[in-house]
Amino acid sequence: MPTTLGELADRFDCKIRGNPEIIIDSVGTLLGATPNAISFLSNPAYIKQLKTTRAGAVILEERHQDLCPVPALVAINPYAVYARVADFLHTPKVVIDPYIHPTACISEDAKVADSSRISAHAVIGPGAEIGESVVISEGCIVGAKVTIGSKTRLAPHVVLMSGVEVGKRCIFHSGVVCGSDGFGFAHEDESWIKVPQLGGIVIGDDVEIGANTTVDRGTIENTVIEDGVKLDNLIQIGHNVHIGAHTVMAALCGIAGSTVIGKRCMFGGAVVAVGHLTICDDAVFTFHSTILKSITEPGTYSGALSVDKSPRWRRNAARFKTLDSLIRFGRGTLEKETDE
Amino acid sequence: MPTTLGELADRFDCKIRGNPEIIIDSVGTLLGATPNAISFLSNPAYIKQLKTTRAGAVILEERHQDLCPVPALVAINPYAVYARVADFLHTPKVVIDPYIHPTACISEDAKVADSSRISAHAVIGPGAEIGESVVISEGCIVGAKVTIGSKTRLAPHVVLMSGVEVGKRCIFHSGVVCGSDGFGFAHEDESWIKVPQLGGIVIGDDVEIGANTTVDRGTIENTVIEDGVKLDNLIQIGHNVHIGAHTVMAALCGIAGSTVIGKRCMFGGAVVAVGHLTICDDAVFTFHSTILKSITEPGTYSGALSVDKSPRWRRNAARFKTLDSLIRFGRGTLEKETDE
Amino acid sequence: MPTTLGELADRFDCKIRGNPEIIIDSVGTLLGATPNAISFLSNPAYIKQLKTTRAGAVILEERHQDLCPVPALVAINPYAVYARVADFLHTPKVVIDPYIHPTACISEDAKVADSSRISAHAVIGPGAEIGESVVISEGCIVGAKVTIGSKTRLAPHVVLMSGVEVGKRCIFHSGVVCGSDGFGFAHEDESWIKVPQLGGIVIGDDVEIGANTTVDRGTIENTVIEDGVKLDNLIQIGHNVHIGAHTVMAALCGIAGSTVIGKRCMFGGAVVAVGHLTICDDAVFTFHSTILKSITEPGTYSGALSVDKSPRWRRNAARFKTLDSLIRFGRGTLEKETDE
Repeated sequence: MPTTLGELADRFDCKIRGNPEIIIDSVGTLLGATPNAISFLSNPAYIKQLKTTRAGAVILEERHQDLCPVPALVAINPYAVYARVADFLHTPKVVIDPYIHPTACISEDAKVADSSRISAHAVIGPGAEIGESVVISEGCIVGAKVTIGSKTRLAPHVVLMSGVEVGKRCIFHSGVVCGSDGFGFAHEDESWIKVPQLGGIVIGDDVEIGANTTVDRGTIENTVIEDGVKLDNLIQIGHNVHIGAHTVMAALCGIAGSTVIGKRCMFGGAVVAVGHLTICDDAVFTFHSTILKSITEPGTYSGALSVDKSPRWRRNAARFKTLDSLIRFGRGTLEKETDE
Repeated sequence: MPTTLGELADRFDCKIRGNPEIIIDSVGTLLGATPNAISFLSNPAYIKQLKTTRAGAVILEERHQDLCPVPALVAINPYAVYARVADFLHTPKVVIDPYIHPTACISEDAKVADSSRISAHAVIGPGAEIGESVVISEGCIVGAKVTIGSKTRLAPHVVLMSGVEVGKRCIFHSGVVCGSDGFGFAHEDESWIKVPQLGGIVIGDDVEIGANTTVDRGTIENTVIEDGVKLDNLIQIGHNVHIGAHTVMAALCGIAGSTVIGKRCMFGGAVVAVGHLTICDDAVFTFHSTILKSITEPGTYSGALSVDKSPRWRRNAARFKTLDSLIRFGRGTLEKETDE
Repeated sequence: MPTTLGELADRFDCKIRGNPEIIIDSVGTLLGATPNAISFLSNPAYIKQLKTTRAGAVILEERHQDLCPVPALVAINPYAVYARVADFLHTPKVVIDPYIHPTACISEDAKVADSSRISAHAVIGPGAEIGESVVISEGCIVGAKVTIGSKTRLAPHVVLMSGVEVGKRCIFHSGVVCGSDGFGFAHEDESWIKVPQLGGIVIGDDVEIGANTTVDRGTIENTVIEDGVKLDNLIQIGHNVHIGAHTVMAALCGIAGSTVIGKRCMFGGAVVAVGHLTICDDAVFTFHSTILKSITEPGTYSGALSVDKSPRWRRNAARFKTLDSLIRFGRGTLEKETDE
């Protein structure tokens, strides 16, 4: 969908710098963009690439505009503008072509909106309700009494077990499993008795869940994922976890059962938390943190042993690298190694 | 399936405290239970909730009975009794409705018991043997010569590759893959030659495997999972691992090839073990432990660097949090920070 | 496919020790092999088993031949020879029986080579190109414009999203998802705007990807996996990661977005790397390492906090186990505990 730089500036409310008539038909990286592609600068680490870019234009903050050798869109939040521009230029604006593939198996008493698409080999269970313009891709299994809000899209091979409730405009990637049993067993003698997992899962609007991520149903009450939560791939969400709105987690995180996470938290990759914790709003956990205690104060936490305030963790981790030297040779040799 | 408290006491062999005539029709949490629901107290951390519960009754230990404001079932192991009560009240006792969905593809020489259920888009390979009252859910792939014992249930999208043997009363959740090739390659020059993975997998009775967990087939001999093992979601079991009876693992654990694990072990979430180890019976590993050496003595182990006896690990990890202060300022400031 | 030891020696260019006429019909472990099975010794830890083996023959290095109580094939790289012998003895040499299962859904304008096999419930999207002798197993979803090189095999339930390019002779195990969206969101106010993931994935020849592993598509440019890479189960490869030829990763690794990994690297299990790093050729990371910085020098690295050269990591980790004693009692008690 080719357009001009001026048109983009108008549409996305940016100041323009340079020729508004240039044609923009795609996005590109600072290094790879061709003269009709628009790029962006959001991370200052890429300023060097900005200076030599051959992009048609670059979306950037005002403070960087003088470093840009090509026309620019000046924005307060260039990455957000980029996201919208990329969507505008590249996402086909076709109306979803509603249909039900002949190999799909839809229970007689399921309600499927006429505007939704049910792809090959999908299965929709009894009592399920599929909203307007929903896309159920190939091989998805939608269990009994599942409800899916309008415009939600399931990639191929998503499994929603019985009773799971999904909001509007969600995106679930391939291999997501929502509603498997929580891991609950009572110890008796030397074996284990299964504790029935009777709760459900309630997922809000605008939630995205990555490939092969698993979300367990609650034991008695529900597992809850609030609006706007974004989960990456291969994440485990235990039974009765509650994730507050707009919290994001990168891949390979694991949250054990009954932990309650606040709003707007950010989890780097491979962060794990034990169960029954409470994590306040606006907590940030860096890559590969281990959360063993509740967090009551917003801020940034780090630590593979057990999280601490990030600066203190970093200082201690740096000292760890000198521990052997310290013990063998005393403090004298320490600073050098720390500096390495 | 409504009943009375007295009926539950009789059926599950508990002492009763309070009115045996009250009607119980469901289970609930201490906080959320309504007057016809029964709850339980197993973790003393919830005593505060017990004191204000509005449940119809609570299952608890004798030592807690005087704290309970409502009728109670008194039991030695309240959680086990709860598991049975919840199953009794909530699990439909219908006989499985045996059928073969018309979209299922069943090899001509597979043996499928008449009492089993084969759901939509399932595939059963040549020579497979499916026992009595087995449930094969939507989209499951059961490879050639797989055997499945009676009453085992596969959730949607389970894959059992050729030759996998599964016992009775097992539950495999969605996305489980059993029988993928182990990760075996011989280094030659700068590339890798695939080592054929010729072994199988033998899984005992009463095993539960969580969503998207993977179990690799053996290289020459079998990967073995004994009776009563419970594996949570997103766990990796490498080739030729042997897991002893009644061992449990929470989500995101990984056991590398040829490690032999004893009976009744307990692995918290995200515990990882290198290959070729031997872990004795009754070893317990806390959350996010790293097992780099064989364990010869029952007990509780912890440690993200390399497991140690848990109390020692905890003391060292607490000291780690003060390492920088120690080195900078000497021991004087240490205790304060440790106490934090 | 029974043969003689002499025939194996000839075919795989080994020296023979003992009777070349003995019949070999299978492979076995040193402990379990029967008199017509051939075993191997590659890891000296198993020398004790060699001495009592009842195998028909053993593949081993010259330096171990005098320890072997049975005939032997002497080779420089016994494990590589074993891999070839096992393949020769056990892998059926039948030509793939090409067919298209009647339940498969193949888009009219997909190109499927006549020699390929498309199994039950597989779906091939518009514009896809499936090469010669490709095996697409049950329930695989091959998206629009995907290309798959000759002799590649997809196990059941593999998902390749639109535009993914796969080379020749690859093996993808069950549950692999390639081409799910990268995890890209722009922060605005307190919520997140999805950044369209417009790049693809390019996978070279002879790549093996383990069960339930996920590979995300690039944001603008491609995610790239070069020839001969081997990825184990439950690995996450983020958007725009580039993995150099013949690099291997054991299970549960995670590589965050835009990290570039060199050739011939080796990642033990559960190694995680943050994004935007550069890792040079021939770097080795031991089990459960955490990579937080770029690696510029080949060598072996370890460390759950942040990788270090392995010997230094090991010394420091050993000292960690004595940290509490050190602080409480001074250096005197240290050595004893370290030795434990």
